[in-house]
Amino acid sequence: MTLSSVPAVDDLHDDALATALQRAMDSKTKPLGSLGQIERLAQRLGAILGTPSPRLLQPQMLVCAGDHGLAARGVSAYPSDVTWQMVENFLAGGAAVSVLARQHGLALTVVDCGVRHPFAPRPGLLVRKVAEGTADALAQAAMSAEQCDTAIANGMAIVKDLPGNALLLGEMGIGNTSAASLLLARLAGLAVADVTGAGTGLDAEAVQRKVAVLQAVLQRHPDAVAPLSALAAFGGFEIATLVGAVLQAAAERRVIVVDGFIASSAVLVAARLRPHVLQRCVFAHRSGERGHALMLAHLRAEPLLDLGLRLGEGSGAALAWPLLVSACALLGEMASFDSAGVSGATTDVGAREKA
Amino acid sequence: MTLSSVPAVDDLHDDALATALQRAMDSKTKPLGSLGQIERLAQRLGAILGTPSPRLLQPQMLVCAGDHGLAARGVSAYPSDVTWQMVENFLAGGAAVSVLARQHGLALTVVDCGVRHPFAPRPGLLVRKVAEGTADALAQAAMSAEQCDTAIANGMAIVKDLPGNALLLGEMGIGNTSAASLLLARLAGLAVADVTGAGTGLDAEAVQRKVAVLQAVLQRHPDAVAPLSALAAFGGFEIATLVGAVLQAAAERRVIVVDGFIASSAVLVAARLRPHVLQRCVFAHRSGERGHALMLAHLRAEPLLDLGLRLGEGSGAALAWPLLVSACALLGEMASFDSAGVSGATTDVGAREKA
Repeated sequence: MTLSSVPAVDDLHDDALATALQRAMDSKTKPLGSLGQIERLAQRLGAILGTPSPRLLQPQMLVCAGDHGLAARGVSAYPSDVTWQMVENFLAGGAAVSVLARQHGLALTVVDCGVRHPFAPRPGLLVRKVAEGTADALAQAAMSAEQCDTAIANGMAIVKDLPGNALLLGEMGIGNTSAASLLLARLAGLAVADVTGAGTGLDAEAVQRKVAVLQAVLQRHPDAVAPLSALAAFGGFEIATLVGAVLQAAAERRVIVVDGFIASSAVLVAARLRPHVLQRCVFAHRSGERGHALMLAHLRAEPLLDLGLRLGEGSGAALAWPLLVSACALLGEMASFDSAGVSGATTDVGAREKA
Repeated sequence: MTLSSVPAVDDLHDDALATALQRAMDSKTKPLGSLGQIERLAQRLGAILGTPSPRLLQPQMLVCAGDHGLAARGVSAYPSDVTWQMVENFLAGGAAVSVLARQHGLALTVVDCGVRHPFAPRPGLLVRKVAEGTADALAQAAMSAEQCDTAIANGMAIVKDLPGNALLLGEMGIGNTSAASLLLARLAGLAVADVTGAGTGLDAEAVQRKVAVLQAVLQRHPDAVAPLSALAAFGGFEIATLVGAVLQAAAERRVIVVDGFIASSAVLVAARLRPHVLQRCVFAHRSGERGHALMLAHLRAEPLLDLGLRLGEGSGAALAWPLLVSACALLGEMASFDSAGVSGATTDVGAREKA
């Protein structure tokens, strides 16, 4: 993929709209700023959707799945077969993200981006398999440049076809915390030991082995420093597909709800290609996976939840979703001081008069 | 109110149920513990409702309102009239808690516990007015022992008549962060300067004046050390009504969703009377009001959200509500490893076998 084939993502900066949003929020019957981060969230949603009255329509939960050649090196607590088994579980409605998507009315689309398993076609499943899992990144690049391009193009095409104005990012892939750690270490210049965690549940000794493997992978690919080179070197297909999905959603000014460590790594890559992607992102939570806090700090993100989640699948994005709905509802439905006949503050008259 | 007229609140401790809940959660198709605080929330909801399959039914948002004599001392950025004006706003559907209650299907009941205003009767409003606001706590006790008893009894009677198995706590009362700070300072033995904040939006100088007023109030009532004595000395009627509501809800094993600083102060008083009240509480958020973090630490609470909210009204409880629904849904609807045919972990077989 050449950079020129990546869609343009323009700067959302709009002083007039920002002022209108601030005035609207400040006119509501509440002390100035008293809804805290929910106010900043409402303002961000208005900025993304380009209106002082944002409404979220037909939210789409996109769960991208893929297998990782590196998993054979023992970097995960679970066998690779769990990837396809969990895809079946997503589709059968028994996974966490399935339950949460039902609760919140999120349309769930599961994508086979490169799972080592043949799936029978069925509603809710898109087969966009680039290969039967990535190659072992310790031996060669996880994917070829062509495979990486194909996965990104798949993600773009998928989002083009989805309705609505909000995209929630989910993923599944045994071994994919390793890919995310590698991308973060390389693209942000962080020590791999600082960004490598237990994933699905490694013990301390196994984490040490994982760090050693990842260190060796980084040394194997010294020239993979550009975002797409790093993505191809470290994988995986589900992350590359998410990169494409993020770029397309950003170009269309959809709200992008970012889940945990792996989804954030896709945003990291996309933002290196198109920095204004980050203006479209709402970071759902700070995960319990080591490295995510550093990832969020690197992206200057302000996550909504901090519940020690480390499941992925989009589960954190789904858990945070009602807060986005609340932010829009508060902006749209709360009375103003004037309309409700409520007296203003006596001590911050200056601030009130500005509002 | 004598302690004997306060309902008994028994110890929920039940090893068999706790084990059943842990097994149920650990059998789900996810790495052990990977839903973080949501898992502990699910376990708490199961413990409160006495079942490994908790379901939340007919949740009730109870917003208690009252005026404070101390407000005349300039401890708030807003005039006391805002209390009744906001009660009207709650009932008209334009306040933050009104919007959020609609979003989440929470039945909203507003109680005039002692507002300095005559309200026309209407659906959704209960008039349980003990007096037209409390007395100035700098001059005398905010309420007499009899008034305090009446307010607590009102809260108990209100909850007895409400359906459902979950109670969300909200409040409104210009000046009531002062009452909450006084209760926390006295009952937890903390310095008043450490637990006094900007409330609805005082500037730094005004906060200093507020601290001086509260310090003087504490000195005015040196003997108000027992929980009910402190409550009577410092007020307010809405807090005392909430104390009764909390005690009754706890006795009935309802889930109690605690909002911010003022709602927490009612829980603090109730827990001094009946310590097992805390087993029934879910703390919705850590508020931006100075003192709330110390309050939560004192109560050993683990709040769900940390969004810098400082509005009250029950808005934080309402924002957190979907997380409780999610916790029950995940426990009730997620597939198990066995039922979904998903492989277990390869490196923590011991833990999986226990589950």
